[in-house]
Amino acid sequence: MTESGISRRRLLGTAGATGLALGAAGGAAGYAAAPADTSSSSPAASLTSLGADAVMFHGKHQPGITTPVQSRGHLIAFDLAAGAGRKEAAALLRRWSATAERLMAGKAAAGEDTDVARDAGPSSLTVTFGFGHSFFSRTGLEKQRPGALDPLPDFSSDHLDKARSDGDLWAQIGANDPLVAFHALRAIQKEAGDAARVRWQMNGFNRSPGATAHPMTTRNLMGQIDGTNNPKPSDDDFDRRIYVPATGAAGATRDPSWMAGGSYVVVRRIRMLLDDWEKLGLEHQEAVIGRHKSDGSPLTGGTEATEPKLEKAGADGKYVIALNAHARITRPDQNGGSAMLRRPFSYHDGFDKGGEPDAGLLFVCWQADPLRGFVPVQRKLDRGDALSEFIRHEASGLFAVPGGAAKGEYVGQRLLEG
Amino acid sequence: MTESGISRRRLLGTAGATGLALGAAGGAAGYAAAPADTSSSSPAASLTSLGADAVMFHGKHQPGITTPVQSRGHLIAFDLAAGAGRKEAAALLRRWSATAERLMAGKAAAGEDTDVARDAGPSSLTVTFGFGHSFFSRTGLEKQRPGALDPLPDFSSDHLDKARSDGDLWAQIGANDPLVAFHALRAIQKEAGDAARVRWQMNGFNRSPGATAHPMTTRNLMGQIDGTNNPKPSDDDFDRRIYVPATGAAGATRDPSWMAGGSYVVVRRIRMLLDDWEKLGLEHQEAVIGRHKSDGSPLTGGTEATEPKLEKAGADGKYVIALNAHARITRPDQNGGSAMLRRPFSYHDGFDKGGEPDAGLLFVCWQADPLRGFVPVQRKLDRGDALSEFIRHEASGLFAVPGGAAKGEYVGQRLLEG
Repeated sequence: MTESGISRRRLLGTAGATGLALGAAGGAAGYAAAPADTSSSSPAASLTSLGADAVMFHGKHQPGITTPVQSRGHLIAFDLAAGAGRKEAAALLRRWSATAERLMAGKAAAGEDTDVARDAGPSSLTVTFGFGHSFFSRTGLEKQRPGALDPLPDFSSDHLDKARSDGDLWAQIGANDPLVAFHALRAIQKEAGDAARVRWQMNGFNRSPGATAHPMTTRNLMGQIDGTNNPKPSDDDFDRRIYVPATGAAGATRDPSWMAGGSYVVVRRIRMLLDDWEKLGLEHQEAVIGRHKSDGSPLTGGTEATEPKLEKAGADGKYVIALNAHARITRPDQNGGSAMLRRPFSYHDGFDKGGEPDAGLLFVCWQADPLRGFVPVQRKLDRGDALSEFIRHEASGLFAVPGGAAKGEYVGQRLLEG
Repeated sequence: MTESGISRRRLLGTAGATGLALGAAGGAAGYAAAPADTSSSSPAASLTSLGADAVMFHGKHQPGITTPVQSRGHLIAFDLAAGAGRKEAAALLRRWSATAERLMAGKAAAGEDTDVARDAGPSSLTVTFGFGHSFFSRTGLEKQRPGALDPLPDFSSDHLDKARSDGDLWAQIGANDPLVAFHALRAIQKEAGDAARVRWQMNGFNRSPGATAHPMTTRNLMGQIDGTNNPKPSDDDFDRRIYVPATGAAGATRDPSWMAGGSYVVVRRIRMLLDDWEKLGLEHQEAVIGRHKSDGSPLTGGTEATEPKLEKAGADGKYVIALNAHARITRPDQNGGSAMLRRPFSYHDGFDKGGEPDAGLLFVCWQADPLRGFVPVQRKLDRGDALSEFIRHEASGLFAVPGGAAKGEYVGQRLLEG
């Protein structure tokens, strides 16, 4: 699919399980589709592409950026331990990279494995590493700190919990099996050893592959289709918008050379006030978003892929898509052509004492430059998004995610040994 | 499979997606199985049996007991609101039953749906309802309260949080898609309306179908195969051990007649002290359990299904399976033939401040009589299980789960209108 190289592999188990991935292109199945009985009654699961698919660790870019979003995700941030510096960080990234490579290939961790992922295929596991602003001063690498890591501006609607924000180091883990994902999380934590301690950790999820015949989009916990208008790896300008170019290449930026092929990730824990949202009713929900909930099409008609007609007025003379509709404010052509690749997970951490779910979106977005991706869009949302009264940004992080490791190299080596 | 009637259906989406369930019988794939490249490069997911499978709501028994355990689970307990009694409870169970039936068939909830499950198949969704000890006094139904609901004895190793224990009403939700499960959870909560409020709620997970070629067992977060020695629906005495018989039937008990076809569920939130456990090392872990971690076979040899040789001594003259080994203590033939059907979910609620995961097992076990199922086994474990220093029971519940609803009936109707 992309240069990061999603290789589809089949794990041939001892049972001779067969991996299958019949294409089921487009089209929502919807509630109306009629179930039909079949004669099948075998309870045995097959080792489908869900378990057998493996993603390559090595490549120009790290995995977990253009990899199709997995059904289970973990985000974890670490702070370097007191006394740990560049040397310890380099050793840690070397250990982490070796572990990520092994686990993503469906192998056990080196040394003693917890066995939690045993029996399972790699299940599209990806592990992605990044560096936070504070990493560079702690390791004496201030001169290598990208300007793009300057702290995000304050937004008036922020309710950020510092304890669950930022961090020296960040990892994103995704897999289509919850135990494979947990196994990787524990392995990454164990490898941190004495060099770093957990600062915060969050769990998320998305649709399971095969749960829907509408595979390219997922829904969030507000019931909205998510991912509409996301740039596609096949777009001409995808690489330019999402990845940092090599120094000296066309479109080269002021990023340090060690970031070539890398990307910047903005992470926001966005709580959804679901009780309020659900009370709103369908018509108002659609007005807030500017799109139909059923299929993601703009209120001005068409399909999910149709451009919204932002100038179209209704019989009442008002814009069909309101001035504060989320879809209008986030439209790339309304934001100076900025683009970010949104690749979120939903989260649900139980109910609070008032009986409302602590649930929402682990918003994860990727861009070559946060000041041209996330920031301008969020600034506009902050000023007048109709959705803002139903959500609350509770945590935030910004990390520099270096390019992928070549064979024999570890992630971040060009920074740490540069 | 059982009388509760697992019907395998295919949701034929508009894309003409094909449901496939090729059998992949037995045999662990393991880390050693070699991946092989294939030429497939289609990123489109197929609507496999993962999404298309539907479980019948109506039947002799409620769903979610013998249904193969799903990859995502929610447990939720409610207390009746002040002023709500038998009449409100009856109306609530009627609403809940109607909603469970609709959602399990892959339909939208009545009224306004949140759309969170839209596009997805039923994904083996099950919703199961139960009554706690306190329900009966609040509804004036003390005379109908089963003796089996008498509070569980205290165990010396318990560290129970009352706020996360017990409850008037209980529901278990399971599905092979996280959004389908969350959708059902919100629908059940919404239907509670003014009649009941959330007391506690917990989230869990298991292997995704298709992630492994070893489909009949799952692993817990200690890396152990879970479910070994579970009674099977095909066993001659399965129904007698798991379900309450009809009044007057052979083996009839002193249970009230409304519990015919029902079962009692014990729920324990069992935290695993994973840092301590993982430090222990494989050999000691296997001694604690009495089984090999790799394949669940007893330390005295054979396969997972082989009976442990409890009298076998090693060269040192000591029992190969130690006196305090978990597998010895939990062996049914060491416990007066008691049996329970364990159907747990793992849980992981992030990390605590010390950097240790708040993770473990949502232990859910089913039996016709808790005093012959859970209690005697837990009493023995409490006295001398080598595993006990690595786990902590943090919450507990015991609920009467009535038989399944016939068509036109709702769950608990024989109690509430009896």
